[in-house]
Order: sequence, then C-alpha cells, then structure tokens
Amino acid sequence: MTAIQKALAEAIGTFWLVFGGCGSAVISAAFPEVGIGLLGVSLAFGLTVVTMAYAIGHISGCHLNPAVTIGLWAGGRFPANEIPVYIIAQVVGAVAAAAALYLIATGHADYNIVENGLASNGYGDRSPGGYAMGAALAIEILLTFFFLMIILGATDGRAPAGFAPLAIGLGLTLIHLISIPVTNTSVNPARSTGPALIEGGAAMGQLWLFWVAPIIGAILAGFVYKFFDGSGQDVVGE
Amino acid sequence: MTAIQKALAEAIGTFWLVFGGCGSAVISAAFPEVGIGLLGVSLAFGLTVVTMAYAIGHISGCHLNPAVTIGLWAGGRFPANEIPVYIIAQVVGAVAAAAALYLIATGHADYNIVENGLASNGYGDRSPGGYAMGAALAIEILLTFFFLMIILGATDGRAPAGFAPLAIGLGLTLIHLISIPVTNTSVNPARSTGPALIEGGAAMGQLWLFWVAPIIGAILAGFVYKFFDGSGQDVVGE
Amino acid sequence: MTAIQKALAEAIGTFWLVFGGCGSAVISAAFPEVGIGLLGVSLAFGLTVVTMAYAIGHISGCHLNPAVTIGLWAGGRFPANEIPVYIIAQVVGAVAAAAALYLIATGHADYNIVENGLASNGYGDRSPGGYAMGAALAIEILLTFFFLMIILGATDGRAPAGFAPLAIGLGLTLIHLISIPVTNTSVNPARSTGPALIEGGAAMGQLWLFWVAPIIGAILAGFVYKFFDGSGQDVVGE
Amino acid sequence: MTAIQKALAEAIGTFWLVFGGCGSAVISAAFPEVGIGLLGVSLAFGLTVVTMAYAIGHISGCHLNPAVTIGLWAGGRFPANEIPVYIIAQVVGAVAAAAALYLIATGHADYNIVENGLASNGYGDRSPGGYAMGAALAIEILLTFFFLMIILGATDGRAPAGFAPLAIGLGLTLIHLISIPVTNTSVNPARSTGPALIEGGAAMGQLWLFWVAPIIGAILAGFVYKFFDGSGQDVVGE
Repeated sequence: MTAIQKALAEAIGTFWLVFGGCGSAVISAAFPEVGIGLLGVSLAFGLTVVTMAYAIGHISGCHLNPAVTIGLWAGGRFPANEIPVYIIAQVVGAVAAAAALYLIATGHADYNIVENGLASNGYGDRSPGGYAMGAALAIEILLTFFFLMIILGATDGRAPAGFAPLAIGLGLTLIHLISIPVTNTSVNPARSTGPALIEGGAAMGQLWLFWVAPIIGAILAGFVYKFFDGSGQDVVGE
Repeated sequence: MTAIQKALAEAIGTFWLVFGGCGSAVISAAFPEVGIGLLGVSLAFGLTVVTMAYAIGHISGCHLNPAVTIGLWAGGRFPANEIPVYIIAQVVGAVAAAAALYLIATGHADYNIVENGLASNGYGDRSPGGYAMGAALAIEILLTFFFLMIILGATDGRAPAGFAPLAIGLGLTLIHLISIPVTNTSVNPARSTGPALIEGGAAMGQLWLFWVAPIIGAILAGFVYKFFDGSGQDVVGE
Repeated sequence: MTAIQKALAEAIGTFWLVFGGCGSAVISAAFPEVGIGLLGVSLAFGLTVVTMAYAIGHISGCHLNPAVTIGLWAGGRFPANEIPVYIIAQVVGAVAAAAALYLIATGHADYNIVENGLASNGYGDRSPGGYAMGAALAIEILLTFFFLMIILGATDGRAPAGFAPLAIGLGLTLIHLISIPVTNTSVNPARSTGPALIEGGAAMGQLWLFWVAPIIGAILAGFVYKFFDGSGQDVVGE
Repeated sequence: MTAIQKALAEAIGTFWLVFGGCGSAVISAAFPEVGIGLLGVSLAFGLTVVTMAYAIGHISGCHLNPAVTIGLWAGGRFPANEIPVYIIAQVVGAVAAAAALYLIATGHADYNIVENGLASNGYGDRSPGGYAMGAALAIEILLTFFFLMIILGATDGRAPAGFAPLAIGLGLTLIHLISIPVTNTSVNPARSTGPALIEGGAAMGQLWLFWVAPIIGAILAGFVYKFFDGSGQDVVGE
C-alpha cells in the first residue's frame, strides 16, 4: 500500500467513526419513546470500528485514532515516521464528519448547535453526568490503556486470526457503556477534535484533556504489553 | 449455480430482510413498556443480512438490494448481464414480504394500514423525525456509500475469510442506528418498494428518492474502492 | 458419540434454551426502570443457542428443538431412526427447565404462576399483543421455515466453517425481535411444552399449534433447500 | 509463559471484568432517560470477557474467575498447582478495580457508597429484586454449572477454533440477562469480592454464598463434561 492509499483509508474510516458514533448520538439517542439511548450509541461507536476494520484493515491497519497509532508505536508495532501522516488523515476525516453531521442535523427544524451540539466530549459542567476533571482524566487514561491492551493482544500473532476487528470494535462498545456519563467517552483525540472544532466555544477549551489522557493511556499500554512478548523483539517494519 | 437458483435465493433473502426488518418495526418496536425500540429494529435489519449471508451467500452472493448489486458491478465485482434478474428477484421478494406482513398485522384488531403503515421510508412530513428532503438525500447517499465500502472491503480477498457476513450485517445495523429518525432508513431500493407498494398513497410519491440516492452512493463507492485495489484488475466473472 | 451422550447433550442444551430464554422473560424483562424488555429476551434466547452450539455442537449437532430435528431429516441431513430419542431428550430438558425456573421464581414473594406464568406461548386472548389464531399459525410456520433455511444454509459445506452457531443463534434472536408480541415466539415445540406443562390450564389447550406450525415450516424448508443442493444427494449418515 | 506473566495477565483481565461490568452498572445503568439498563450491564460484563479472551487468552487462558480455574481443574484441563496463583491474582485485580471505580465514582457530587454501592452481589434484602437465599444459591450453582459447560465445550478440541472467546463472553452476557434481579449476578467469587471489600458491611456478610455456590456449580460441570470426552483422558499439562 502507498502512503496515499493508507492516508485515504484512515480519513474515510475516521469519518465513519465520527459520523456513525456522534451521528447516532445526535440523531437517534433521545428520539421520543423509542430512542436508542446510550446503549445504542455505544453499539454504534463499536460497530464503526468492527465494520471498518474488516473493510480497510488490510489497507491501513484501521487505526482511526491518534492514540491507537501512538500506542502501536510504543508497543513496537508501528514505525515512527508514519505517525504524522496517520494523525493528520484521522483529524481531517473527523472534522469532515462533524461538518457533514452538522449539515444533516440542520435538516431538522428544531436542531440548534449551541443547545444540541455534536456529541463533543467534556468534563465538569460539560460532563453529561457532571463528573469532575480528575475523574475524567483518570477514566480516559484507564480506558485507553485497556483499549490498547485489547488491540495489542488481539492482533498478537498468537491470538486467533481474523477476530481482532470484533474484539477491538466490541471493546470500544464496552468502553462507551462504561463512560458516556463521565466524558461522553473519547479515548480518541481525533473523535474529540471533529465535533469540538465545529461546535467551537467551550468544547474547544476542554479539548486538551482528550489529547493528553488517551495518549498517556496508550503509551502505558504499549510498554506494559511488551512484558507479554515472548521474545520482546520489535515488529516495526513487518 | 443456475440463474434460477440465484434468483430464488435473492427473492427469499430479500423477503427475509423486509419481513424481519419492517416486521420488527411494525409488530415490536412500540410494544407497551417492553418494546424493542429503534435499537431492536436496527438489530433486526442487520441480523436479516447476517443470517442470510451465511445461509445463501454461497448460492447468490446474498445482495438482497439493488444498490448492492449495482455497486458491486461498479466496483468490478459483478457482471452487468446478471443485474436485471437480481433486481427483479429482490423487488419480488420485498413486495411479497410486505404483503405477508400486512396479512399478519391485520391479525391484530387495532392495526390500521393508514395509521400504522408497514415501515415505509419517507422524508419531509413522512420522515419519522421531520427531516427535510435535502437531509434525506444526503444521508441516504452517504450511508449507502459506506455500506458498499464495507461490502467491497470485507469481501476483498485480502480481508479475513468468513467474517464478511458479520461485518456487512452489523454495518446495516449501524446504518439504522444512525438514520431511522431521518428517513426510516433505506439504503435499499427493494426494501423501500415493498412497503410503499402495499401502503400506496404518499409512500409511493416519495419512492423515487430511495432508488436514486442509494444507487448514487453505491456507484460512488464502487469507483472509490478501486483506488485501493492493488492491481486495479476487474474480477468480474470470477 | 453414543446415543446416550447425544441424548444427554440435547437434554442439557434444551434445558439451557428454556431456562435462559424463559428465565430472562420471567425474571428480567419487566424489572422496574432498568428491565431488559423484549430486546433483552430476544438476545437471551439467541445466546442460549450460540453458546450451546459451540459447547455441544460437536456432540449432538445441538438441535434443541423437535422442529429442527425434523427439518434436518426433511433436508436429508439427519437419519430418521434417531428422531425419537432426540425429541424425547429435548422435551425432557425443556420440562425440567420450566420446573427449575418455577422453583427459583417462587423465591420472589410476589411471584404467582397464574398471574406471572413461565413465558408460555399463546394466541388469541393468550397472545401478548392480542393476535388472532390465524396470524399465530402463519407467523410460526413462516419463521420456522426461515429458521431452518438459515440452519440448512449455514451448515452447508459451502458456507464458511465455524460461523453456523452465530448465524443460527442470532437468527433465533431476530425471530424473537419480530414475533414475541404475536405468540411469545415458539418455533420450537419443546420450548412451548416445558412452560405449558408446568403452567397447565389454558397454556396446555393451545399447545397443539406450537407443535403443528413449527413442524410444517421446518419440513417445507427441508424440501425447498434441496433445490439449492448442487447435487441433490442425501447426506444422511455422514 | 512464566508464572508472573500469567498472574499479571489474570490480574489485569479481572480488573477489566470488574471495572467494566460493575462500572457500567454504577455509572451508566440508571442514567436519566437514556440509561443502558440491565441489558447494557449484561452486555458490558460479557464484553469484558470477549475482549480479554482475545487479548490475553494466549498468555494465561483468561480465566478471570476462581470458579473457572477450579472448574477447569475438575474437568482435567488445568493443573492443581497453578490454582493458588491464579486465584490470588484474580482477587487482587478485582479489589483494585473496585477501588478504582470508587475513586472515579466520587468524581460525581451525588455519589454515596452506602446508597449507590459498587454493584456488589446479594440475596434476601440485598437482592435487587428481593429473592430469597435459597433461590440465590440455586441460580448461582445452576448458572455457573452452565458457564463451565460452555467453557469446557467451546474450548474442546472438537469445537470450531477461535470462537471460544465469543461463546464464553456472550454466555456471561446471557447469564446476566437472566439473573441480575436475583443476586446482581456473580458466578465469579473474585467479581463478588472486589466490590464487597470496598463497600464493607452487609456485602461482606453475604460474600460466602458467592464463593460457595459458583465453585460447586463449576466442579459439577467439570465432572459432567468428562462424560462427553471421547477418551476420558486428562489433558492437564498440555
């Protein structure tokens, strides 16, 4: 695969993650009587990864998330020199998705971006359940740590082949089942950046946390998982 | 497989998609207290595809959807001369399913086709959430584009074998999680035609959009995915 | 495998299907505020089959259902002389499960078998949504037909290996998503017999439909699927 | 794998099971309007096992549960001398998870450990639905028996390779769908110990049942499943 093919795949895939996950939250979560709720949104986020991992995994590896790209590098699974292109493509895809979602949401007469937003992440007074910044930091680090443990483990050569997209996508569903009330769930700086940029205002002021915490958690997992490598050898470049 | 075997498989499979998806919506979605809601309907639509793709994938490829058939042709995966038979079989199956669902629904004393309908698709005043025609067009194009990207990617020879039915079916679940409030979710002209024909009236007047938009999205995906083909060779006739 | 091993596996597996499916309905469906609803019950029924098919599929084939046993025979996949043992084991397992569920349910002070029942099947005034006998007959025949099509297709030698338990179990989930309001969903005479025997009364009076309709649907599927067999050869005894 | 690698994997995995399962219950189950309910909690518990089984199954076997470790030993699949290390690691991970969950929950101003708890298990007046001790004992024995049957069957060399994590994890989801109202669902002494230790008080007084019942059920399954072994040979040490 060429760098352009990989970048395009990452941009398309991250578009899908943000459009599908945040779109289900904005459009369907609180639909009267029969809305899908946080369970439906959790499933939607996870299924964006399940579907894309089977669709483009063979093209780019389907990271769709700067923390995943960096965590795979920390675990010795991804070359440092490809990190910038991946992250740029992911952020571009995420911002485009948030813009597309905004355009479609305005097709509904009652939609108002200030009131309804685009499912951006937040803490304190912007946390859906009113959780403080410390809890937000802790849970985003912890959940991204486990997300990368799942990714590193399920894509390990000793794990059953072919099942990694299911394990990883359903892992993202699980992460949302736990933590939407705390931060609206990020574990993904690109997913946080898209809606925050289009919403602007307070969402942008809290964006830093959703870059810092996921990346810390991901790097920790990269180092911890190495302890389980039989040989400890790096697989960069494979 | 003979053409008759393929056509019968497509008709049976599309019957299942429409009967299962629209049936769960009409019968179970708003059942008092314990109804399955839009989340249950989304799961039902996806599972019709998961189950049929494992059951008849080896017979007809299990398209169940004119947009899928055309998108696979655009992506160089399906021969043009088989398109008409597939689409006719799909529409026949869908109409039969809507008729069967109507007969069973009338076994309930309170059922009224004008009021309760058969889960037909719509926009504007017929959109479940009141979304305008422009939003309906945009989301149907966009979601069918991604549906075909998932199909083309997951059935690519480089993707893990055997998992495509799960990825594709769960992709349809995800698509419904996002967009039932907008158009009742089509991405499938046959699925739209069955209920519209039996309901008649306004549903027929809006049917054009659910042929045009999915087919545009599908053709776009067929061309875009070619960019990821290592060799760019057509696989028609394989 | 010996006949006793197969019979024990079928009895244990059918116990699980009835205890898990009907148990989730009796204990959890309408739990105040956070109950699992019909969606949770549908998932529970399907997962009893997913789990048992992976656990005992290699022992008995994991039918857990007289209609499945008869449908597989009609499709040329199961020898006639083993049918009686399978059906007896399935019914014994189902009755034991209903009895166990009754004992546990009475551990709750408010439980009353006449009022709360054991999730038996019914039509007319015993249909959860008040559907007439004709609708009940039609949907049980139709859904069992498709259940067997999924089973025959997903276990076909040309389908991807290993995925049949997922396709079949999730197919049962889908069937429940559609039809719990109509008949409480049977497609399985053993599942209907267990609760009806322990409940007694009116449930027993309607039990005949849940033997007749599923078996008709299953036999139809057995014959129809033969049309898709490349060679049409019987595989009994393989 | 060394004993330390296995112990660390079991501790991390059991942390995830308790943090994810109990965390979703404490944080998201009853969130206003869009809470995930018992269905979401059931899914969360199951997905902790699905994800960890793919991530660390190749390291420690991913038991995450003293009853599983003992049941596998009873079934001749696990050496007795490794049991203590596994159980200690599981309990350490579970207690750490309950402590972490407590810290994050207190990031919410309204959280109170006496009132809201940490999703500990209970019976009688501590049963979510008010079920008596006898029902609690019976259902914990029964469900752990089936949980181990699923584990022993799905990891049998004759079952399809690679699917065991899905079957086992979704089996845990099913078990929760049935029984959260009875005991809050344990089938896992470590999962019960973590929250009970941090909550203290009455939860500790009922903890004995959630060690005794699951271990009885697991040992029974270990012996029963041997009846299905073709040869009856022990596989300890494989």
